[in-house]
Amino acid sequence: MKFNTNPVRGTVDYLPSEMEVRSYAEKIIVDTYKENGFLQIKTPILESLDLLTNGDSGDNQKLMFKTVRRGEKLNLSKPNLTEADITEEGLRYDLTVPLVRFFANNREKLTFPFKAIQIDEAFRAERPQKGRVREFTQCDIDILGEASPIAEIELLHAGIKAYERLGFKNLTVKINDRRILNEIIVKSGFKISDVETICVSLDKFDKIGYDGVESELSQNGFNSDGIKKLIETFKALKSASNNSESFKMLGELGISEEVINNLKLIIESVSACISDNFRLIYDSTIIRGQGYYTGTIYEVYDNEFGRAIGAGGRYDKMVEKFTDNSTPAVGFSIGFYSTVMLMIEKGIVVPNKKLALIYDKNNSYADIMQTKQSLIEKGYQVSTFAFPKNFNNFVQKIKQSNFTLLVKMQDINKIISL
Amino acid sequence: MKFNTNPVRGTVDYLPSEMEVRSYAEKIIVDTYKENGFLQIKTPILESLDLLTNGDSGDNQKLMFKTVRRGEKLNLSKPNLTEADITEEGLRYDLTVPLVRFFANNREKLTFPFKAIQIDEAFRAERPQKGRVREFTQCDIDILGEASPIAEIELLHAGIKAYERLGFKNLTVKINDRRILNEIIVKSGFKISDVETICVSLDKFDKIGYDGVESELSQNGFNSDGIKKLIETFKALKSASNNSESFKMLGELGISEEVINNLKLIIESVSACISDNFRLIYDSTIIRGQGYYTGTIYEVYDNEFGRAIGAGGRYDKMVEKFTDNSTPAVGFSIGFYSTVMLMIEKGIVVPNKKLALIYDKNNSYADIMQTKQSLIEKGYQVSTFAFPKNFNNFVQKIKQSNFTLLVKMQDINKIISL
Repeated sequence: MKFNTNPVRGTVDYLPSEMEVRSYAEKIIVDTYKENGFLQIKTPILESLDLLTNGDSGDNQKLMFKTVRRGEKLNLSKPNLTEADITEEGLRYDLTVPLVRFFANNREKLTFPFKAIQIDEAFRAERPQKGRVREFTQCDIDILGEASPIAEIELLHAGIKAYERLGFKNLTVKINDRRILNEIIVKSGFKISDVETICVSLDKFDKIGYDGVESELSQNGFNSDGIKKLIETFKALKSASNNSESFKMLGELGISEEVINNLKLIIESVSACISDNFRLIYDSTIIRGQGYYTGTIYEVYDNEFGRAIGAGGRYDKMVEKFTDNSTPAVGFSIGFYSTVMLMIEKGIVVPNKKLALIYDKNNSYADIMQTKQSLIEKGYQVSTFAFPKNFNNFVQKIKQSNFTLLVKMQDINKIISL
Repeated sequence: MKFNTNPVRGTVDYLPSEMEVRSYAEKIIVDTYKENGFLQIKTPILESLDLLTNGDSGDNQKLMFKTVRRGEKLNLSKPNLTEADITEEGLRYDLTVPLVRFFANNREKLTFPFKAIQIDEAFRAERPQKGRVREFTQCDIDILGEASPIAEIELLHAGIKAYERLGFKNLTVKINDRRILNEIIVKSGFKISDVETICVSLDKFDKIGYDGVESELSQNGFNSDGIKKLIETFKALKSASNNSESFKMLGELGISEEVINNLKLIIESVSACISDNFRLIYDSTIIRGQGYYTGTIYEVYDNEFGRAIGAGGRYDKMVEKFTDNSTPAVGFSIGFYSTVMLMIEKGIVVPNKKLALIYDKNNSYADIMQTKQSLIEKGYQVSTFAFPKNFNNFVQKIKQSNFTLLVKMQDINKIISL
């Protein structure tokens, strides 16, 4: 090996067998979203640093890849050089900030409400770990310009349909509302300005449990009566055995009826048009990290593997940061990398008609091509190979790339299953 | 507008109507390539600077986007700071260099010969101009590990099939061989070491004509007898009225029979399995810029618009630069951006079943969703809209996003064509 041929740290080479699952999944997701009336758009990977640093994107901004200035714009002998002197653009860290820029830039040419599909790459310089890479595909649908809950209903319906077609059989959508979280926190005796800090701790329920959250809040100097009340409320809400019990409790806690009814309506309307394999439940401990959420928030869990594979929520205040118009907005994002990983682990089968056509030195190229073309017309995906020296090795090799069929030019009617 | 919402210089926002053509084209191209036995792979956009600067990629290297070092690795107070001190990775400028790294890195897991599909983004900081953007999609097929001309035959066959399915009706593949160019140049009295410089001038035939090339070569200090002989040879070759006349001339010029027969075989074998709308002709003035080509080179022209929309060639010496193994290689690349632009200009129709479903405040969300789902099951792509205030404006707007059908909840059996 003349030099290191590994992909750079935190990035991945996708082999044919992996790409087969990825492109199958991408096709199903995009087709489902298009059937559900969403329109695909595409924005650049490169965005201005102005845009990328003007959001509520928290840690994502810190993890941004930036490009170096080019040509005369790069002056390394300038005194007191800062990072701003050497940077030009950034690589987007999500698809939401670019979507809002796109919407502001092209508003006059778009249907309203605007229902967008994006399936594209984003970049974050995170410490690489299992299930997390630095260059990853995001798969988002968003509705901009719709204040009513039909936005959430359509997003969740389309997302669940996509998972169903991908072969997922047992999923739960856990849904909550930021306004409920705000009210619970304030009713426990905290200030509205503390909500964000408190939510950071609450977000760790599933990792560090009630005790962990309690001690973290107390370390942060919050009042112990308030903490006790807060934890008790969450414990009580978690003990509810179904949605109507949860909503009854929320009513008793004095949470706004309007917000509760909104969640009820979303859950009922979506449940009416999906299969019983998929359930929507209210879950008080769904928090979502990003600061920009203003209303409903949700996460999709695979019940068999207990992993989150999708998420989203309403961010009604983001568009007005970028334009003079206030525009309500809601999104749903399929975790593409984790969804594809789970499909591979579950052994979800991708339809395959890959056939190896074996020729030898007696066959003319014109003959080989005509035979290949006639097999393609019969519906096969046909790859030609010269007769291999070691036939068994060859078969093992092509099976690794998911070939399922083989035929020889000399015996063209005998298609063998591998 | 609170701040500039344009995409960064040289990049593009793709509207739904443009994305419709792009994703239609991408699907047809990838499906055709898969049917023809190619396997899709994906490599990262970020690659090491070591890799990206270790090629024959000429200008492309100079136009590279580089990323800034992060965290402690960036020390701006270091004395005599150079660009190498502040850069970390590069954004790939093509898909060929990453393909060769991928091949070297994953060789043991791949079928051999390896037939790859890549459709992905690449980046070059060129001066933006019509038909040229800084962030663009490349759409490549390559065969690694096949020295015989079946590689060229399969690539050209698959590429032409893809164009045919995209709706192109009148294309010419102009084909040449670097070895013929080398022989002509040397036989005209030049040194083999001058071939590359001379090819740079020859590559301008279509822009500056014979006279332009002649004066450029003479300005570069080449011998005027040689230049005269060279230009005369090209004039003679260009006067041939068909392939057999061209090949006869090449024979008379003393060009190696092996190389001529190789081109003949490729042209004959491909012609035997494509429609008459597509022609392969030998063209002595096809040069191709990149230094890495070693044998056949070709470009695809749309005859109606006279524009190049695809190209490729053989690069047998590139893999050995990156690994210890010598591996023959050939590629074919569809110019995705120019192909899609041409499809739009030609008015090639993308199949479309986009339907607007209009509801009003009397409809429950559950009813809307059930109606939507039943229309989806009939094969429509269904987007819901609340009853618009100005119906005519609304219809104009959705037509811009290529909606072709409309139906109202109150009159669900009456689907109107827009």
